[in-house]
Amino acid sequence: MKRKKMITLNDIKEAKKNLEGIAENTPLTKAPILSSTFNSEIYLKKENLQLTGSFKLRGAFNRVANLPKEKREKGVVAASAGNHAQGLAYAAQYFACEATIFMPEATPLTKVSGVKSYGANVVLHGENFDEAYEAAIKFSEENNKEFIHPFADDDVIAGQGTIALEILEDIKDMKQIIVPIGGGGLISGIAIAAKSINPDIKIIGVVASGARGMKESYKSQMPIDSASVRTIADGIAVRDVNPKLLEIIIDYVDHIVEVSDNEIANAVLFLLEKHKLVVEGAGAVSTAAIMHEKIEIEDSKVCALISGGNIDVTMLSQIIEKGLVKSSRKMNLIVTLMDKPGALTHLTEIFSECSANIVQIDYDRDSIKLEFGEAHVTIALETKGQEHQKEIREKLKHNAYRFKQI
Amino acid sequence: MKRKKMITLNDIKEAKKNLEGIAENTPLTKAPILSSTFNSEIYLKKENLQLTGSFKLRGAFNRVANLPKEKREKGVVAASAGNHAQGLAYAAQYFACEATIFMPEATPLTKVSGVKSYGANVVLHGENFDEAYEAAIKFSEENNKEFIHPFADDDVIAGQGTIALEILEDIKDMKQIIVPIGGGGLISGIAIAAKSINPDIKIIGVVASGARGMKESYKSQMPIDSASVRTIADGIAVRDVNPKLLEIIIDYVDHIVEVSDNEIANAVLFLLEKHKLVVEGAGAVSTAAIMHEKIEIEDSKVCALISGGNIDVTMLSQIIEKGLVKSSRKMNLIVTLMDKPGALTHLTEIFSECSANIVQIDYDRDSIKLEFGEAHVTIALETKGQEHQKEIREKLKHNAYRFKQI
Repeated sequence: MKRKKMITLNDIKEAKKNLEGIAENTPLTKAPILSSTFNSEIYLKKENLQLTGSFKLRGAFNRVANLPKEKREKGVVAASAGNHAQGLAYAAQYFACEATIFMPEATPLTKVSGVKSYGANVVLHGENFDEAYEAAIKFSEENNKEFIHPFADDDVIAGQGTIALEILEDIKDMKQIIVPIGGGGLISGIAIAAKSINPDIKIIGVVASGARGMKESYKSQMPIDSASVRTIADGIAVRDVNPKLLEIIIDYVDHIVEVSDNEIANAVLFLLEKHKLVVEGAGAVSTAAIMHEKIEIEDSKVCALISGGNIDVTMLSQIIEKGLVKSSRKMNLIVTLMDKPGALTHLTEIFSECSANIVQIDYDRDSIKLEFGEAHVTIALETKGQEHQKEIREKLKHNAYRFKQI
Repeated sequence: MKRKKMITLNDIKEAKKNLEGIAENTPLTKAPILSSTFNSEIYLKKENLQLTGSFKLRGAFNRVANLPKEKREKGVVAASAGNHAQGLAYAAQYFACEATIFMPEATPLTKVSGVKSYGANVVLHGENFDEAYEAAIKFSEENNKEFIHPFADDDVIAGQGTIALEILEDIKDMKQIIVPIGGGGLISGIAIAAKSINPDIKIIGVVASGARGMKESYKSQMPIDSASVRTIADGIAVRDVNPKLLEIIIDYVDHIVEVSDNEIANAVLFLLEKHKLVVEGAGAVSTAAIMHEKIEIEDSKVCALISGGNIDVTMLSQIIEKGLVKSSRKMNLIVTLMDKPGALTHLTEIFSECSANIVQIDYDRDSIKLEFGEAHVTIALETKGQEHQKEIREKLKHNAYRFKQI
């Protein structure tokens, strides 16, 4: 990124004008359970409800809006299998400008068709993001089309900063804003806008433990790239730290914390059940940081930024499944039975007496772990909580069953 | 319900004052995909983002707010395992008034603890809703506590009507509002408010096919109770038709349509994936009616009311699962293999060549359907669409596999 000049509050206000009537002013809503748990006023800024399902629309749209008309007419290029692709495709469609998005070959069809639905050309290229990225750069240079970087770009950063203007319009005395960090474009824009309006406001960044490059770099005050990244928060799984963005983050951000995949999954399930929101892993890290007490928030007005909702539904199913087991609402058991008539009936009667609903059952007589005449039954039960599971275990013991909870 | 007087626009405006600063003015947002598909401006009014997860808060809160102080101090009673229970519990907590909610004994723990979290007393009683309802009435009479009916109540109806005021404040020239019908309180309030402001606006009701009492009654102009109800939209699974509400609905509602459980499930998945919203079955019927062309909407400004988001996450998982299979993003196969070394490897190689991800695999050698030396493999695959599934089927045929898609 060429930082010829500093990004200013004015740039962000200009971005706001560009986005007027386009980007949703997404809801900023009090979160009752979190607020009462942490004795604070905690608000969620719901950018998952933004058009294209994430905040990325703001930056991409501002970038295309600020392009000179003749450049826009030549078309724009990006590499992304995620939110930036959708945001840019939407912006390009709005300006009737051709967009070409490079994605790795293995990109799921839903993501490809999502971007195509906004009229963009999709080029599937390479085995991973880096290969797609290089091909995109080469293509943009050869064809004299503008390459739009997902975060290391002043106009993109200014676009993301408009979120802070909206937050501080709604709640003037917000004390902290908690923001996911991937490449760092989002938090840079928000921090510049918010601190320009109120230098006392605290800006806290959150990385995923599996992609903590920016946290390490912030601590050491120098860019430290990750050898590899691995997290369910794919939207912030960024390997390399951009030095210019690190500079902004060191200047403007007060603190960076990290959350684990389990903590992220908890937050995704919490937002799903309690706030009726579909939130992707990256979008849930700010809530995860609050829930798992990574941040001091007592007696404060705090905003957790929910950055996006583009989560694969299969992943969502898995998070629900694991969450149910963890919160004792589902119980998986392997019970050893005598392989004789009536054995399964007797077992299922016990579950019925305990009002535990059988979700799935699998009967195995052939496992090499078994003695002759024995069978293994793997059972998934719907349960009502820890107490209920304890009751079931005790009833099984009382009836002399051998079993294992898995 | 005693309808001493007609409910007026003024009652609904008074309810709006009662709800000021309490109920969220929930977002009314344009739905881009539906709008372009149906060449209209289609908006979603998102009452799933209301406090307590549904519109029911509005009616319950207005009812408790209008209770004389001395009655409020004696406490309130309701029978509900759903949204009314949560709405009333919230309202009672706000007014520091004791709430006692009767629920059937088999009510899932999450629903019980949801209501308890707002400080209400929960009495688990009876095998079904009717038994809980009778116990609640008896308890309220014996203890001189006010019984709060979930829909057949003027103050409750007026509270729900405030939704229409918000819709018409945001979009003055809305042409149609599409509203779920269970007991009928929601559509009554909305229809009275909307038609009082603009007599030309169309109010369309949607019932679930498995609970169509109000549709039948509307058609015959007399109350017809259902013998039984059965739908995934449990929030509108109401058996008996209240004559007074039927009267209002005949007077104010233009048309009633019905949607099947499959259509509802499609809409739930659509709202989850495309709008990042968790919506319960009852809340999705209005969207389902649009998606499945039950309503004439060409060239119009239409609002689909999303009434609530309190869906059990296990149900949500099932809807996702079924939706993936239906939209060809998941494929379940039973393949017959020769039970010999290398057979499974060869099969999995085929899936790998087709870039189909194996989600689950189950190997069975003992089924009585099998010849000696054969085995059944049940496989779940992640696929990219119909074309991809066709490719997989053809590759299996080409390799002389016997298989069945299930």
